[in-house]
Amino acid sequence: MPPAAPTEPPTDPRDRPIGVFDSGVGGLTVLHELLVSLPEEDFVYLGDTARFPYGERTGAELQEFAMQIAEELLRRRVKLLVVACNSATAAALPALQERMLQTTLGVDVIGVVRPEALQAVSTTRSGRIGLLATPTTVASGAYDAAVTGADPHVTLTSVACPDLAPIIQSGGAGGELFDDRLVEVVRGACAPLLEARVDTVILGCTHYPLVRPLLQRALGRDVQIVTSGAALARQAMHALASRGLDTRRTGEGRYSFLSTGDPEAFRALGTRFLQLPLGPVTQVLPMSDADAILRG
Amino acid sequence: MPPAAPTEPPTDPRDRPIGVFDSGVGGLTVLHELLVSLPEEDFVYLGDTARFPYGERTGAELQEFAMQIAEELLRRRVKLLVVACNSATAAALPALQERMLQTTLGVDVIGVVRPEALQAVSTTRSGRIGLLATPTTVASGAYDAAVTGADPHVTLTSVACPDLAPIIQSGGAGGELFDDRLVEVVRGACAPLLEARVDTVILGCTHYPLVRPLLQRALGRDVQIVTSGAALARQAMHALASRGLDTRRTGEGRYSFLSTGDPEAFRALGTRFLQLPLGPVTQVLPMSDADAILRG
Repeated sequence: MPPAAPTEPPTDPRDRPIGVFDSGVGGLTVLHELLVSLPEEDFVYLGDTARFPYGERTGAELQEFAMQIAEELLRRRVKLLVVACNSATAAALPALQERMLQTTLGVDVIGVVRPEALQAVSTTRSGRIGLLATPTTVASGAYDAAVTGADPHVTLTSVACPDLAPIIQSGGAGGELFDDRLVEVVRGACAPLLEARVDTVILGCTHYPLVRPLLQRALGRDVQIVTSGAALARQAMHALASRGLDTRRTGEGRYSFLSTGDPEAFRALGTRFLQLPLGPVTQVLPMSDADAILRG
Repeated sequence: MPPAAPTEPPTDPRDRPIGVFDSGVGGLTVLHELLVSLPEEDFVYLGDTARFPYGERTGAELQEFAMQIAEELLRRRVKLLVVACNSATAAALPALQERMLQTTLGVDVIGVVRPEALQAVSTTRSGRIGLLATPTTVASGAYDAAVTGADPHVTLTSVACPDLAPIIQSGGAGGELFDDRLVEVVRGACAPLLEARVDTVILGCTHYPLVRPLLQRALGRDVQIVTSGAALARQAMHALASRGLDTRRTGEGRYSFLSTGDPEAFRALGTRFLQLPLGPVTQVLPMSDADAILRG
Protein backbone atom coordinates (compact mmCIF):
# COMPACT_ATOMS: atom_id res chain seq x y z
CA MET A 1 0.00 0.00 0.00
CA PRO A 2 1.25 3.50 -0.71
CA PRO A 3 1.85 5.46 2.48
CA ALA A 4 -0.18 8.60 3.16
CA ALA A 5 0.89 11.87 1.56
CA PRO A 6 3.55 13.67 3.56
CA THR A 7 2.25 16.00 6.28
CA GLU A 8 5.55 17.88 6.47
CA PRO A 9 6.01 20.16 3.45
CA PRO A 10 8.87 18.82 1.32
CA THR A 11 11.76 21.23 0.94
CA ASP A 12 12.06 20.83 -2.86
CA PRO A 13 8.99 22.43 -4.56
CA ARG A 14 9.28 19.85 -7.33
CA ASP A 15 8.44 17.14 -4.80
CA ARG A 16 5.08 18.63 -3.80
CA PRO A 17 2.09 16.45 -4.73
CA ILE A 18 -0.36 16.95 -7.61
CA GLY A 19 -3.94 17.53 -6.44
CA VAL A 20 -6.83 15.89 -8.31
CA PHE A 21 -10.52 16.31 -7.47
CA ASP A 22 -13.88 15.02 -8.61
CA SER A 23 -17.44 14.80 -7.32
CA GLY A 24 -16.87 11.15 -6.43
CA VAL A 25 -15.02 8.08 -7.70
CA GLY A 26 -15.37 8.65 -11.48
CA GLY A 27 -12.25 10.85 -11.54
CA LEU A 28 -10.24 7.86 -10.36
CA THR A 29 -10.06 6.74 -14.02
CA VAL A 30 -8.29 10.05 -14.66
CA LEU A 31 -6.02 9.48 -11.64
CA HIS A 32 -5.30 5.98 -13.01
CA GLU A 33 -3.91 7.49 -16.23
CA LEU A 34 -1.92 10.06 -14.25
CA LEU A 35 -0.44 7.35 -11.99
CA VAL A 36 0.61 5.28 -15.01
CA SER A 37 1.91 8.24 -17.06
CA LEU A 38 3.64 10.08 -14.19
CA PRO A 39 4.65 7.23 -11.85
CA GLU A 40 7.33 9.25 -10.06
CA GLU A 41 4.96 12.00 -8.90
CA ASP A 42 3.02 12.13 -5.60
CA PHE A 43 -0.75 12.61 -5.80
CA VAL A 44 -3.54 13.52 -3.44
CA TYR A 45 -7.09 12.87 -4.68
CA LEU A 46 -10.21 14.42 -3.18
CA GLY A 47 -13.61 12.86 -3.93
CA ASP A 48 -16.51 15.10 -2.88
CA THR A 49 -18.75 12.07 -2.36
CA ALA A 50 -20.86 13.80 0.32
CA ARG A 51 -22.19 16.19 -2.33
CA PHE A 52 -22.26 13.74 -5.27
CA PRO A 53 -23.61 14.05 -7.95
CA TYR A 54 -22.58 17.50 -9.14
CA GLY A 55 -24.97 17.30 -12.12
CA GLU A 56 -27.86 18.47 -9.92
CA ARG A 57 -26.03 21.52 -8.52
CA THR A 58 -26.11 25.14 -9.69
CA GLY A 59 -23.05 26.80 -11.16
CA ALA A 60 -22.74 29.04 -8.07
CA GLU A 61 -22.77 26.00 -5.78
CA LEU A 62 -20.12 24.23 -7.86
CA GLN A 63 -17.87 27.31 -7.77
CA GLU A 64 -18.19 27.40 -3.98
CA PHE A 65 -17.42 23.66 -3.65
CA ALA A 66 -14.46 23.95 -6.03
CA MET A 67 -12.99 26.84 -3.98
CA GLN A 68 -13.38 24.89 -0.72
CA ILE A 69 -11.70 21.86 -2.23
CA ALA A 70 -8.92 23.93 -3.75
CA GLU A 71 -8.22 25.48 -0.31
CA GLU A 72 -8.11 22.00 1.24
CA LEU A 73 -5.65 20.81 -1.41
CA LEU A 74 -3.57 23.99 -1.16
CA ARG A 75 -3.14 23.26 2.55
CA ARG A 76 -1.52 20.02 1.37
CA ARG A 77 0.79 22.17 -0.78
CA VAL A 78 -0.18 20.78 -4.19
CA LYS A 79 1.95 22.05 -7.09
CA LEU A 80 -0.76 21.51 -9.74
CA LEU A 81 -4.54 21.15 -9.49
CA VAL A 82 -6.39 18.79 -11.84
CA VAL A 83 -10.19 19.06 -12.08
CA ALA A 84 -11.23 15.53 -13.07
CA CYS A 85 -14.94 16.34 -13.35
CA ASN A 86 -16.91 17.69 -16.30
CA SER A 87 -19.47 19.63 -14.29
CA ALA A 88 -16.88 21.31 -12.07
CA THR A 89 -14.70 22.15 -15.07
CA ALA A 90 -17.61 23.76 -16.92
CA ALA A 91 -18.81 25.72 -13.87
CA ALA A 92 -15.62 26.69 -12.08
CA LEU A 93 -12.41 26.33 -14.11
CA PRO A 94 -11.80 30.02 -14.97
CA ALA A 95 -12.65 31.17 -11.42
CA LEU A 96 -10.43 28.46 -9.95
CA GLN A 97 -7.54 29.32 -12.25
CA GLU A 98 -7.73 32.97 -11.25
CA ARG A 99 -7.94 32.15 -7.52
CA MET A 100 -5.11 29.60 -7.51
CA LEU A 101 -2.71 31.89 -9.34
CA GLN A 102 -3.28 34.52 -6.64
CA THR A 103 -2.02 32.23 -3.90
CA THR A 104 1.54 32.39 -2.69
CA LEU A 105 2.18 29.03 -4.34
CA GLY A 106 0.86 30.20 -7.76
CA VAL A 107 -0.67 26.88 -8.70
CA ASP A 108 -1.82 26.04 -12.26
CA VAL A 109 -5.26 24.48 -12.69
CA ILE A 110 -6.12 22.18 -15.59
CA GLY A 111 -9.49 20.58 -16.29
CA VAL A 112 -11.15 18.08 -18.55
CA VAL A 113 -12.93 18.93 -21.86
CA ARG A 114 -10.27 21.04 -23.56
CA PRO A 115 -7.41 18.46 -23.50
CA GLU A 116 -9.55 15.69 -25.01
CA ALA A 117 -11.15 18.07 -27.52
CA LEU A 118 -7.68 19.13 -28.72
CA GLN A 119 -6.51 15.53 -28.86
CA ALA A 120 -9.57 14.49 -30.86
CA VAL A 121 -9.07 17.33 -33.34
CA SER A 122 -5.44 16.32 -33.83
CA THR A 123 -6.43 12.64 -34.19
CA THR A 124 -9.32 12.78 -36.68
CA ARG A 125 -8.61 12.36 -40.37
CA SER A 126 -12.16 12.64 -41.67
CA GLY A 127 -13.01 15.71 -39.59
CA ARG A 128 -15.96 13.85 -38.05
CA ILE A 129 -15.67 13.47 -34.25
CA GLY A 130 -18.15 11.82 -31.90
CA LEU A 131 -18.83 12.55 -28.23
CA LEU A 132 -20.36 10.28 -25.60
CA ALA A 133 -21.23 12.16 -22.41
CA THR A 134 -23.90 12.75 -19.79
CA PRO A 135 -26.96 14.83 -20.79
CA THR A 136 -25.70 17.73 -18.61
CA THR A 137 -22.31 17.76 -20.32
CA VAL A 138 -23.80 17.55 -23.82
CA ALA A 139 -26.29 20.33 -22.99
CA SER A 140 -23.47 22.57 -21.70
CA GLY A 141 -22.02 22.80 -25.22
CA ALA A 142 -18.52 22.81 -23.71
CA TYR A 143 -17.14 20.17 -26.09
CA ASP A 144 -18.71 21.89 -29.13
CA ALA A 145 -17.02 25.14 -28.15
CA ALA A 146 -13.66 23.45 -27.50
CA VAL A 147 -13.71 21.43 -30.74
CA THR A 148 -14.90 24.31 -32.92
CA GLY A 149 -12.43 26.64 -31.24
CA ALA A 150 -9.60 24.31 -32.23
CA ASP A 151 -10.82 23.70 -35.78
CA PRO A 152 -14.04 25.28 -37.13
CA HIS A 153 -14.20 22.73 -39.98
CA VAL A 154 -14.54 19.71 -37.71
CA THR A 155 -18.06 18.44 -36.99
CA LEU A 156 -18.99 17.02 -33.58
CA THR A 157 -21.80 14.46 -33.23
CA SER A 158 -22.83 14.33 -29.57
CA VAL A 159 -24.76 11.50 -27.93
CA ALA A 160 -26.27 12.13 -24.49
CA CYS A 161 -26.18 8.88 -22.48
CA PRO A 162 -28.47 9.17 -19.43
CA ASP A 163 -28.07 5.51 -18.40
CA LEU A 164 -24.44 4.60 -19.05
CA ALA A 165 -22.66 6.18 -16.05
CA PRO A 166 -25.28 4.96 -13.50
CA ILE A 167 -25.08 1.39 -14.89
CA ILE A 168 -21.29 1.43 -14.69
CA GLN A 169 -21.30 2.93 -11.19
CA SER A 170 -23.79 0.33 -9.95
CA GLY A 171 -21.48 -2.45 -11.04
CA GLY A 172 -21.98 -3.10 -14.74
CA ALA A 173 -18.26 -3.32 -15.33
CA GLY A 174 -17.17 -5.05 -12.15
CA GLY A 175 -16.01 -8.21 -13.86
CA GLU A 176 -18.80 -10.72 -13.28
CA LEU A 177 -21.37 -7.99 -13.73
CA PHE A 178 -21.36 -7.36 -17.46
CA ASP A 179 -24.95 -7.89 -18.49
CA ASP A 180 -27.30 -7.63 -21.44
CA ARG A 181 -28.48 -4.20 -20.31
CA LEU A 182 -24.96 -2.75 -20.39
CA VAL A 183 -24.24 -4.23 -23.83
CA GLU A 184 -27.54 -2.88 -25.15
CA VAL A 185 -26.91 0.62 -23.75
CA VAL A 186 -23.37 0.70 -25.22
CA ARG A 187 -24.62 -0.37 -28.66
CA GLY A 188 -27.46 2.16 -28.52
CA ALA A 189 -25.04 4.96 -27.63
CA CYS A 190 -22.67 4.05 -30.46
CA ALA A 191 -25.33 3.68 -33.19
CA PRO A 192 -25.67 7.43 -33.98
CA LEU A 193 -21.87 7.74 -34.12
CA LEU A 194 -21.60 4.86 -36.60
CA GLU A 195 -24.34 6.46 -38.68
CA ALA A 196 -22.43 9.76 -38.66
CA ARG A 197 -19.29 7.83 -39.75
CA VAL A 198 -17.05 9.47 -37.13
CA ASP A 199 -13.43 8.26 -36.97
CA THR A 200 -12.67 9.59 -33.47
CA VAL A 201 -14.79 9.38 -30.33
CA ILE A 202 -14.31 11.37 -27.11
CA LEU A 203 -15.32 9.60 -23.90
CA GLY A 204 -16.65 12.73 -22.19
CA CYS A 205 -17.43 11.13 -18.83
CA THR A 206 -14.90 9.70 -16.41
CA HIS A 207 -16.97 6.53 -15.91
CA TYR A 208 -16.77 5.40 -19.53
CA PRO A 209 -13.16 4.11 -19.70
CA LEU A 210 -14.34 1.15 -17.59
CA VAL A 211 -16.27 -0.16 -20.60
CA ARG A 212 -13.77 0.92 -23.23
CA PRO A 213 -13.37 -2.60 -24.76
CA LEU A 214 -17.15 -2.83 -25.26
CA LEU A 215 -17.16 0.63 -26.84
CA GLN A 216 -14.24 -0.23 -29.13
CA ARG A 217 -16.00 -3.37 -30.34
CA ALA A 218 -19.25 -1.49 -30.96
CA LEU A 219 -17.44 1.32 -32.80
CA GLY A 220 -15.17 -0.94 -34.83
CA ARG A 221 -11.40 -1.17 -35.02
CA ASP A 222 -10.85 1.94 -37.15
CA VAL A 223 -12.36 4.39 -34.68
CA GLN A 224 -9.89 6.10 -32.32
CA ILE A 225 -11.08 6.53 -28.74
CA VAL A 226 -9.91 9.59 -26.79
CA THR A 227 -10.25 9.58 -23.00
CA SER A 228 -10.05 12.47 -20.54
CA GLY A 229 -7.40 10.67 -18.50
CA ALA A 230 -4.87 10.12 -21.27
CA ALA A 231 -5.37 13.65 -22.67
CA LEU A 232 -5.08 15.25 -19.22
CA ALA A 233 -1.98 13.24 -18.32
CA ARG A 234 -0.18 14.73 -21.30
CA GLN A 235 -1.26 18.25 -20.36
CA ALA A 236 -0.25 17.73 -16.72
CA MET A 237 3.25 16.73 -17.86
CA HIS A 238 3.55 19.85 -19.99
CA ALA A 239 2.17 22.10 -17.23
CA LEU A 240 4.77 20.80 -14.75
CA ALA A 241 7.63 20.88 -17.22
CA SER A 242 6.87 24.48 -18.29
CA ARG A 243 7.37 25.61 -14.67
CA GLY A 244 10.25 23.22 -14.01
CA LEU A 245 8.08 21.55 -11.37
CA ASP A 246 8.31 17.93 -12.56
CA THR A 247 9.93 15.82 -9.86
CA ARG A 248 13.51 14.71 -10.32
CA ARG A 249 13.04 11.69 -8.05
CA THR A 250 13.07 8.20 -9.52
CA GLY A 251 10.96 5.25 -8.41
CA GLU A 252 7.27 5.20 -7.57
CA GLY A 253 5.65 8.19 -5.95
CA ARG A 254 2.99 8.03 -3.25
CA TYR A 255 -0.72 8.64 -3.51
CA SER A 256 -3.48 9.11 -0.98
CA PHE A 257 -7.19 9.84 -0.87
CA LEU A 258 -9.51 12.32 0.78
CA SER A 259 -13.27 11.87 0.80
CA THR A 260 -15.95 14.25 2.04
CA GLY A 261 -18.28 11.27 2.57
CA ASP A 262 -17.83 7.86 4.18
CA PRO A 263 -14.25 6.64 3.57
CA GLU A 264 -15.35 2.99 3.53
CA ALA A 265 -17.97 3.66 0.82
CA PHE A 266 -15.30 5.47 -1.17
CA ARG A 267 -12.94 2.53 -0.81
CA ALA A 268 -15.61 -0.04 -1.76
CA LEU A 269 -16.36 1.71 -5.07
CA GLY A 270 -12.94 3.20 -5.70
CA THR A 271 -10.68 0.23 -6.37
CA ARG A 272 -12.68 -0.78 -9.44
CA PHE A 273 -12.26 2.70 -10.92
CA LEU A 274 -8.58 3.09 -9.98
CA GLN A 275 -7.49 -0.45 -10.96
CA LEU A 276 -4.54 -0.06 -8.61
CA PRO A 277 -4.23 -0.57 -4.85
CA LEU A 278 -6.26 2.16 -3.15
CA GLY A 279 -4.32 2.80 0.05
CA PRO A 280 -5.53 5.09 2.85
CA VAL A 281 -8.71 7.20 2.61
CA THR A 282 -9.17 10.12 5.01
CA GLN A 283 -12.41 12.03 5.60
CA VAL A 284 -12.16 15.82 5.18
CA LEU A 285 -14.35 18.90 4.85
CA PRO A 286 -17.28 17.66 6.93
CA MET A 287 -20.58 19.07 5.67
CA SER A 288 -22.47 21.55 7.82
CA ASP A 289 -25.55 20.19 9.59
CA ALA A 290 -27.77 22.41 7.45
CA ASP A 291 -26.29 21.06 4.26
CA ALA A 292 -26.48 17.47 5.53
CA ILE A 293 -30.17 17.89 6.34
CA LEU A 294 -30.78 19.52 2.96
CA ARG A 295 -29.25 16.55 1.16
CA GLY A 296 -31.22 13.99 3.20
CA MET B 1 -24.64 -11.62 -24.47
CA PRO B 2 -23.03 -12.83 -27.69
CA PRO B 3 -24.94 -15.76 -29.17
CA ALA B 4 -23.20 -19.14 -29.50
CA ALA B 5 -20.95 -19.75 -32.51
CA PRO B 6 -22.87 -20.99 -35.53
CA THR B 7 -23.37 -24.76 -35.78
CA GLU B 8 -24.13 -24.57 -39.50
CA PRO B 9 -20.96 -23.92 -41.51
CA PRO B 10 -21.20 -20.47 -43.08
CA THR B 11 -21.07 -20.46 -46.86
CA ASP B 12 -18.45 -17.70 -47.15
CA PRO B 13 -15.06 -19.04 -45.91
CA ARG B 14 -14.19 -15.53 -44.73
CA ASP B 15 -17.00 -15.76 -42.18
CA ARG B 16 -15.61 -18.84 -40.43
CA PRO B 17 -14.54 -18.23 -36.81
CA ILE B 18 -10.99 -17.86 -35.48
CA GLY B 19 -10.05 -20.57 -32.96
CA VAL B 20 -8.05 -19.67 -29.86
CA PHE B 21 -6.85 -22.11 -27.21
CA ASP B 22 -5.07 -22.11 -23.88
CA SER B 23 -4.58 -24.39 -20.90
CA GLY B 24 -7.16 -22.37 -18.97
CA VAL B 25 -8.37 -18.80 -18.56
CA GLY B 26 -5.04 -16.94 -18.98
CA GLY B 27 -5.40 -16.91 -22.77
CA LEU B 28 -8.55 -14.81 -22.34
CA THR B 29 -6.30 -11.74 -22.05
CA VAL B 30 -5.09 -12.64 -25.57
CA LEU B 31 -8.70 -13.13 -26.72
CA HIS B 32 -9.51 -9.73 -25.19
CA GLU B 33 -6.97 -8.04 -27.47
CA LEU B 34 -8.24 -10.02 -30.48
CA LEU B 35 -11.87 -9.05 -29.73
CA VAL B 36 -10.92 -5.37 -29.48
CA SER B 37 -8.58 -5.38 -32.50
CA LEU B 38 -10.75 -7.55 -34.78
CA PRO B 39 -14.29 -6.78 -33.58
CA GLU B 40 -15.97 -7.96 -36.78
CA GLU B 41 -14.58 -11.51 -36.58
CA ASP B 42 -16.22 -14.53 -34.91
CA PHE B 43 -14.16 -16.40 -32.30
CA VAL B 44 -14.35 -19.73 -30.53
CA TYR B 45 -12.10 -20.13 -27.46
CA LEU B 46 -11.19 -23.46 -25.90
CA GLY B 47 -9.78 -23.55 -22.36
CA ASP B 48 -8.30 -26.93 -21.43
CA THR B 49 -9.07 -26.35 -17.76
CA ALA B 50 -9.43 -30.09 -17.01
CA ARG B 51 -5.72 -30.54 -17.69
CA PHE B 52 -4.50 -27.17 -16.31
CA PRO B 53 -1.68 -26.29 -15.70
CA TYR B 54 0.34 -27.29 -18.76
CA GLY B 55 3.63 -26.41 -17.03
CA GLU B 56 3.69 -29.82 -15.35
CA ARG B 57 3.18 -31.80 -18.58
CA THR B 58 5.75 -33.40 -20.88
CA GLY B 59 6.27 -32.16 -24.43
CA ALA B 60 4.73 -35.38 -25.82
CA GLU B 61 1.59 -34.88 -23.71
CA LEU B 62 1.25 -31.27 -24.80
CA GLN B 63 1.56 -32.27 -28.47
CA GLU B 64 -1.21 -34.81 -27.97
CA PHE B 65 -3.46 -32.31 -26.19
CA ALA B 66 -2.82 -29.68 -28.85
CA MET B 67 -3.76 -32.13 -31.63
CA GLN B 68 -6.99 -33.10 -29.84
CA ILE B 69 -7.92 -29.46 -29.36
CA ALA B 70 -7.04 -28.58 -32.94
CA GLU B 71 -9.34 -31.40 -34.18
CA GLU B 72 -12.14 -30.11 -31.95
CA LEU B 73 -11.72 -26.59 -33.31
CA LEU B 74 -11.41 -27.82 -36.91
CA ARG B 75 -14.81 -29.47 -36.50
CA ARG B 76 -16.07 -25.96 -35.80
CA ARG B 77 -14.46 -24.92 -39.10
CA VAL B 78 -12.00 -22.34 -37.73
CA LYS B 79 -10.13 -20.37 -40.41
CA LEU B 80 -7.11 -19.59 -38.19
CA LEU B 81 -5.80 -21.23 -35.03
CA VAL B 82 -4.21 -19.10 -32.31
CA VAL B 83 -2.20 -20.84 -29.55
CA ALA B 84 -2.55 -18.44 -26.61
CA CYS B 85 -0.32 -20.46 -24.27
CA ASN B 86 3.44 -20.36 -23.83
CA SER B 87 3.90 -24.01 -22.91
CA ALA B 88 1.77 -25.30 -25.80
CA THR B 89 3.51 -22.96 -28.24
CA ALA B 90 6.95 -24.14 -27.15
CA ALA B 91 6.00 -27.85 -27.23
CA ALA B 92 3.63 -28.13 -30.15
CA LEU B 93 3.62 -25.19 -32.58
CA PRO B 94 5.66 -26.72 -35.43
CA ALA B 95 3.80 -30.07 -35.23
CA LEU B 96 0.45 -28.24 -35.12
CA GLN B 97 1.35 -26.04 -38.07
CA GLU B 98 2.30 -29.10 -40.14
CA ARG B 99 -0.86 -30.99 -39.17
CA MET B 100 -3.27 -28.10 -39.76
CA LEU B 101 -1.89 -27.31 -43.20
CA GLN B 102 -2.55 -30.96 -44.21
CA THR B 103 -6.27 -30.61 -43.50
CA THR B 104 -8.74 -29.86 -46.28
CA LEU B 105 -9.23 -26.41 -44.76
CA GLY B 106 -5.48 -25.64 -44.77
CA VAL B 107 -5.55 -23.62 -41.56
CA ASP B 108 -2.66 -21.39 -40.43
CA VAL B 109 -1.49 -21.67 -36.83
CA ILE B 110 0.09 -18.78 -34.93
CA GLY B 111 1.43 -18.84 -31.40
CA VAL B 112 2.81 -16.59 -28.73
CA VAL B 113 6.54 -15.85 -28.11
CA ARG B 114 7.63 -14.92 -31.64
CA PRO B 115 5.15 -12.03 -32.23
CA GLU B 116 6.01 -10.28 -28.96
CA ALA B 117 9.75 -10.94 -29.41
CA LEU B 118 9.62 -9.29 -32.85
CA GLN B 119 7.59 -6.39 -31.52
CA ALA B 120 10.03 -5.87 -28.65
CA VAL B 121 13.01 -5.89 -31.02
CA SER B 122 11.33 -3.30 -33.23
CA THR B 123 10.39 -1.19 -30.18
CA THR B 124 13.67 -1.02 -28.23
CA ARG B 125 16.02 1.89 -28.81
CA SER B 126 18.71 0.93 -26.35
CA GLY B 127 18.86 -2.72 -27.44
CA ARG B 128 18.14 -3.83 -23.86
CA ILE B 129 14.91 -5.82 -23.54
CA GLY B 130 13.44 -7.38 -20.40
CA LEU B 131 11.24 -10.44 -20.04
CA LEU B 132 8.85 -11.33 -17.23
CA ALA B 133 7.61 -14.93 -17.49
CA THR B 134 7.05 -18.16 -15.57
CA PRO B 135 10.11 -20.22 -14.59
CA THR B 136 9.18 -22.86 -17.21
CA THR B 137 9.02 -20.28 -19.99
CA VAL B 138 12.28 -18.62 -18.98
CA ALA B 139 13.99 -22.04 -18.74
CA SER B 140 12.75 -23.00 -22.23
CA GLY B 141 14.93 -20.27 -23.77
CA ALA B 142 12.20 -19.65 -26.36
CA TYR B 143 12.26 -15.87 -25.98
CA ASP B 144 16.08 -15.75 -26.06
CA ALA B 145 16.02 -17.67 -29.34
CA ALA B 146 13.28 -15.49 -30.84
CA VAL B 147 14.90 -12.20 -29.78
CA THR B 148 18.42 -13.21 -30.85
CA GLY B 149 17.06 -14.63 -34.10
CA ALA B 150 15.53 -11.25 -34.90
CA ASP B 151 18.54 -9.19 -33.83
CA PRO B 152 21.74 -10.78 -32.45
CA HIS B 153 22.86 -7.45 -30.95
CA VAL B 154 19.92 -7.12 -28.62
CA THR B 155 20.32 -8.35 -25.03
CA LEU B 156 17.46 -9.99 -23.14
CA THR B 157 17.27 -9.85 -19.34
CA SER B 158 14.84 -12.53 -18.17
CA VAL B 159 13.15 -12.64 -14.77
CA ALA B 160 11.43 -15.87 -13.73
CA CYS B 161 8.38 -15.04 -11.60
CA PRO B 162 7.18 -18.15 -9.76
CA ASP B 163 4.56 -16.31 -7.69
CA LEU B 164 3.03 -13.69 -9.98
CA ALA B 165 0.62 -15.79 -12.11
CA PRO B 166 -0.72 -17.77 -9.12
CA ILE B 167 -1.35 -14.55 -7.14
CA ILE B 168 -3.18 -13.00 -10.10
CA GLN B 169 -5.22 -16.15 -10.77
CA SER B 170 -6.23 -16.39 -7.10
CA GLY B 171 -7.66 -12.89 -7.21
CA GLY B 172 -4.84 -10.39 -6.74
CA ALA B 173 -6.17 -8.18 -9.54
CA GLY B 174 -9.90 -8.59 -9.03
CA GLY B 175 -10.56 -5.02 -8.06
CA GLU B 176 -10.89 -5.07 -4.28
CA LEU B 177 -8.15 -7.67 -4.03
CA PHE B 178 -4.99 -5.73 -4.75
CA ASP B 179 -2.82 -6.32 -1.74
CA ASP B 180 0.63 -5.70 -0.30
CA ARG B 181 1.83 -9.13 -1.44
CA LEU B 182 0.99 -8.41 -5.08
CA VAL B 183 2.66 -4.98 -4.99
CA GLU B 184 5.75 -6.50 -3.38
CA VAL B 185 5.97 -9.32 -5.95
CA VAL B 186 5.57 -6.86 -8.85
CA ARG B 187 8.31 -4.58 -7.48
CA GLY B 188 10.59 -7.56 -6.87
CA ALA B 189 10.11 -8.80 -10.43
CA CYS B 190 10.83 -5.38 -11.91
CA ALA B 191 13.96 -4.63 -9.82
CA PRO B 192 16.41 -6.65 -11.97
CA LEU B 193 14.97 -5.05 -15.13
CA LEU B 194 15.48 -1.55 -13.72
CA GLU B 195 19.03 -2.50 -12.78
CA ALA B 196 19.66 -3.75 -16.34
CA ARG B 197 18.21 -0.42 -17.63
CA VAL B 198 15.96 -2.10 -20.20
CA ASP B 199 13.67 0.19 -22.24
CA THR B 200 11.22 -2.50 -23.37
CA VAL B 201 9.63 -5.30 -21.34
CA ILE B 202 7.83 -8.36 -22.71
CA LEU B 203 4.98 -9.71 -20.56
CA GLY B 204 5.65 -13.37 -21.37
CA CYS B 205 2.69 -14.82 -19.49
CA THR B 206 -0.97 -14.28 -20.36
CA HIS B 207 -1.85 -13.51 -16.74
CA TYR B 208 0.36 -10.44 -16.47
CA PRO B 209 -1.69 -7.89 -18.46
CA LEU B 210 -4.14 -7.87 -15.53
CA VAL B 211 -1.53 -6.02 -13.44
CA ARG B 212 -0.12 -3.91 -16.27
CA PRO B 213 -0.70 -0.55 -14.49
CA LEU B 214 1.25 -1.79 -11.45
CA LEU B 215 4.04 -3.00 -13.75
CA GLN B 216 4.12 0.31 -15.65
CA ARG B 217 4.44 2.26 -12.41
CA ALA B 218 7.20 0.00 -11.13
CA LEU B 219 9.09 0.18 -14.43
CA GLY B 220 8.64 3.92 -14.94
CA ARG B 221 7.00 5.87 -17.75
CA ASP B 222 9.81 5.49 -20.28
CA VAL B 223 9.67 1.69 -20.46
CA GLN B 224 7.52 0.24 -23.26
CA ILE B 225 5.47 -2.82 -22.31
CA VAL B 226 4.82 -5.46 -24.98
CA THR B 227 2.03 -7.99 -24.41
CA SER B 228 1.32 -11.27 -26.19
CA GLY B 229 -2.23 -10.23 -26.95
CA ALA B 230 -1.44 -6.99 -28.77
CA ALA B 231 1.43 -8.56 -30.72
CA LEU B 232 -0.65 -11.62 -31.68
CA ALA B 233 -3.64 -9.52 -32.75
CA ARG B 234 -1.44 -7.78 -35.31
CA GLN B 235 -0.10 -11.11 -36.62
CA ALA B 236 -3.62 -12.60 -36.78
CA MET B 237 -4.75 -9.65 -38.94
CA HIS B 238 -1.81 -10.17 -41.30
CA ALA B 239 -2.35 -13.97 -41.44
CA LEU B 240 -6.00 -13.51 -42.42
CA ALA B 241 -5.32 -10.72 -44.91
CA SER B 242 -2.55 -12.69 -46.65
CA ARG B 243 -5.05 -15.45 -47.45
CA GLY B 244 -7.94 -13.07 -48.15
CA LEU B 245 -9.77 -14.60 -45.19
CA ASP B 246 -10.57 -11.47 -43.21
CA THR B 247 -14.32 -11.08 -42.91
CA ARG B 248 -16.06 -8.47 -45.02
CA ARG B 249 -18.96 -8.20 -42.59
CA THR B 250 -19.42 -5.05 -40.52
CA GLY B 251 -20.67 -4.83 -36.96
CA GLU B 252 -19.69 -6.97 -34.01
CA GLY B 253 -18.89 -10.64 -34.51
CA ARG B 254 -19.88 -13.42 -32.13
CA TYR B 255 -17.74 -15.30 -29.64
CA SER B 256 -18.26 -18.44 -27.60
CA PHE B 257 -16.37 -20.64 -25.19
CA LEU B 258 -15.50 -24.31 -24.82
CA SER B 259 -14.05 -25.72 -21.62
CA THR B 260 -12.75 -29.23 -20.95
CA GLY B 261 -13.48 -28.73 -17.23
CA ASP B 262 -16.44 -27.36 -15.31
CA PRO B 263 -18.11 -24.58 -17.36
CA GLU B 264 -19.20 -22.73 -14.22
CA ALA B 265 -15.67 -22.67 -12.83
CA PHE B 266 -14.49 -21.35 -16.21
CA ARG B 267 -17.13 -18.63 -16.13
CA ALA B 268 -16.37 -17.64 -12.53
CA LEU B 269 -12.69 -17.01 -13.32
CA GLY B 270 -13.05 -16.01 -16.95
CA THR B 271 -14.86 -12.67 -16.89
CA ARG B 272 -12.07 -11.01 -14.95
CA PHE B 273 -9.53 -12.10 -17.57
CA LEU B 274 -11.71 -11.26 -20.59
CA GLN B 275 -13.03 -7.91 -19.29
CA LEU B 276 -15.99 -8.30 -21.64
CA PRO B 277 -19.28 -10.20 -21.25
CA LEU B 278 -18.48 -13.92 -21.26
CA GLY B 279 -21.54 -15.45 -22.91
CA PRO B 280 -22.13 -19.21 -23.21
CA VAL B 281 -19.58 -21.83 -22.08
CA THR B 282 -19.93 -25.42 -23.37
CA GLN B 283 -18.08 -28.44 -22.01
CA VAL B 284 -16.17 -30.47 -24.62
CA LEU B 285 -13.57 -33.23 -24.88
CA PRO B 286 -14.47 -35.02 -21.64
CA MET B 287 -11.42 -36.60 -20.05
CA SER B 288 -11.15 -40.37 -19.94
CA ASP B 289 -11.81 -41.94 -16.52
CA ALA B 290 -8.19 -43.06 -16.32
CA ASP B 291 -6.94 -39.54 -16.94
CA ALA B 292 -9.45 -38.09 -14.48
CA ILE B 293 -8.28 -40.53 -11.77
CA LEU B 294 -4.66 -39.77 -12.58
CA ARG B 295 -5.26 -36.04 -12.11
CA GLY B 296 -7.12 -36.56 -8.84
